[in-house]
Amino acid sequence: MNQPKADRVAIIGVGLIGGSFGMALKKRRLAREIVGIGRSVERLQRAVDLLAIDRFSTDLSTGVADADLVYVATPVGMEVEFIRQIASMVKPGCVITDAGSTKKEIVSVVEESIPDSSRFVGGHPMAGSEQTGVEAGNPDLFVGATYVLTPTDRTDPQALNLVHGLAEGIGSKVITITPEAHDRCAAVISHLPHIIAAAMVDLAKNQSLEEPQVFEMIAGSFRDMTRVAASSPDLWRDICKTNTEEIKRSAEAFKGILDEALIALDSGDFEQWFAQAGDIRRGFPSR
Amino acid sequence: MNQPKADRVAIIGVGLIGGSFGMALKKRRLAREIVGIGRSVERLQRAVDLLAIDRFSTDLSTGVADADLVYVATPVGMEVEFIRQIASMVKPGCVITDAGSTKKEIVSVVEESIPDSSRFVGGHPMAGSEQTGVEAGNPDLFVGATYVLTPTDRTDPQALNLVHGLAEGIGSKVITITPEAHDRCAAVISHLPHIIAAAMVDLAKNQSLEEPQVFEMIAGSFRDMTRVAASSPDLWRDICKTNTEEIKRSAEAFKGILDEALIALDSGDFEQWFAQAGDIRRGFPSR
Repeated sequence: MNQPKADRVAIIGVGLIGGSFGMALKKRRLAREIVGIGRSVERLQRAVDLLAIDRFSTDLSTGVADADLVYVATPVGMEVEFIRQIASMVKPGCVITDAGSTKKEIVSVVEESIPDSSRFVGGHPMAGSEQTGVEAGNPDLFVGATYVLTPTDRTDPQALNLVHGLAEGIGSKVITITPEAHDRCAAVISHLPHIIAAAMVDLAKNQSLEEPQVFEMIAGSFRDMTRVAASSPDLWRDICKTNTEEIKRSAEAFKGILDEALIALDSGDFEQWFAQAGDIRRGFPSR
Repeated sequence: MNQPKADRVAIIGVGLIGGSFGMALKKRRLAREIVGIGRSVERLQRAVDLLAIDRFSTDLSTGVADADLVYVATPVGMEVEFIRQIASMVKPGCVITDAGSTKKEIVSVVEESIPDSSRFVGGHPMAGSEQTGVEAGNPDLFVGATYVLTPTDRTDPQALNLVHGLAEGIGSKVITITPEAHDRCAAVISHLPHIIAAAMVDLAKNQSLEEPQVFEMIAGSFRDMTRVAASSPDLWRDICKTNTEEIKRSAEAFKGILDEALIALDSGDFEQWFAQAGDIRRGFPSR
């Protein structure tokens, strides 16, 4: 298959993900021109300096004019409003995709509120970190990472093909699932884990009221497990708020597993349970 | 203060921790001779090759004869039996210390069953990984790590001084707390987290029955948070079995925090809660 390319790409929100997407396209010459859209001229200029974009605009309609692809990489809470606005600004045939961490609410609002939503392709690159900003960007951020696309029966196959091809072109492994399945999985492997990490930090803080030395006893394992608790609070509030039901469902299932593990520790085969989890963990696909 | 040294050190269990302790002492010339004690001649020979020990014995009484310090680094479940046996084999004045991940049960059994327990010093270096074996050993494993010592009112000050000095000599930051306080803290920052990691893996496995793609969506954060689920199951069964009450207590507290977080997500200030955890996380002492 020929590598799909885009002539002109507009990126709304040139932070870690948007910036890395631009860097990745430029490094692999998958777009002729990349326009960054944002509010801060200073940050947009930095994105130019860091080779994430070719030029920029702080005006939405100017920025997306003549774009073949608009990449929406704003915080989740702002996405729908941007997509709604640009829907009437882009040229016919322009494909819109996003990089939001939840998909069901975004996709359904887009399909309800945009006259022709067939050229919108929901996306979620499973890459990133607790870092933010284009300074943390990296043209190889997506290499080896899974890139989830969530087309629906309304999605135009050509639009899907373009986004699919570019995601593969920047080194990702693409999987396509429904927005609902995406959100169920994301709750389990990302959203609930962020809440668990913060809850573990909270537990240690509470223990420190009794034993201040608890913080000094923290070793690599606790450090690794709580790293994402330092992620952006407003970003994660928005992500979690758009996936509340799945997060609550997975939290209930998680507490049930925890309870069973404690029963096994008391009177059952804790070793076998722990060994099974270890086998599954060792089987995680490596990047 | 003069750096305390030991003339002859015996290490029972020359794995990751025992082997690294030997390497650390040798690198810094803190012992004249280090004797490794274990069951497998092959593994003990490898420990000699890797400069963890000078010589070895598969016989306990031969191995500990004339030792000034015996370092017990066997799995937690075997520790007490070894300490009991060597108590009558060592020369007068020999100091015994251990590296077990729980302290209350070990220290109390030692104090109940050894005629003169004053020269036993409970210890727990907060270093290690899910790796095992002397091959994973490293003379700088303890550098910058916290080394917990749990003396009681029976502990001989000179014995404590020797272990304290050697732990500092290999680069650790030493803290002394009671065995009970150690176990409360260890439940929060190590034992429960290992169970949480395994429970998270279990949750993903259950989700995969519905959505097999969940494993492909796993990114760095989930990978980091579940890494310790691949730790040795029998080792962790023994560790957790000797701290069941504290683990259960901390699990209840953890579930309470999780519930409050979900209520905040629904109707409260989730962002503020998450931001507070992030502030605490960023304040963790760095190694």
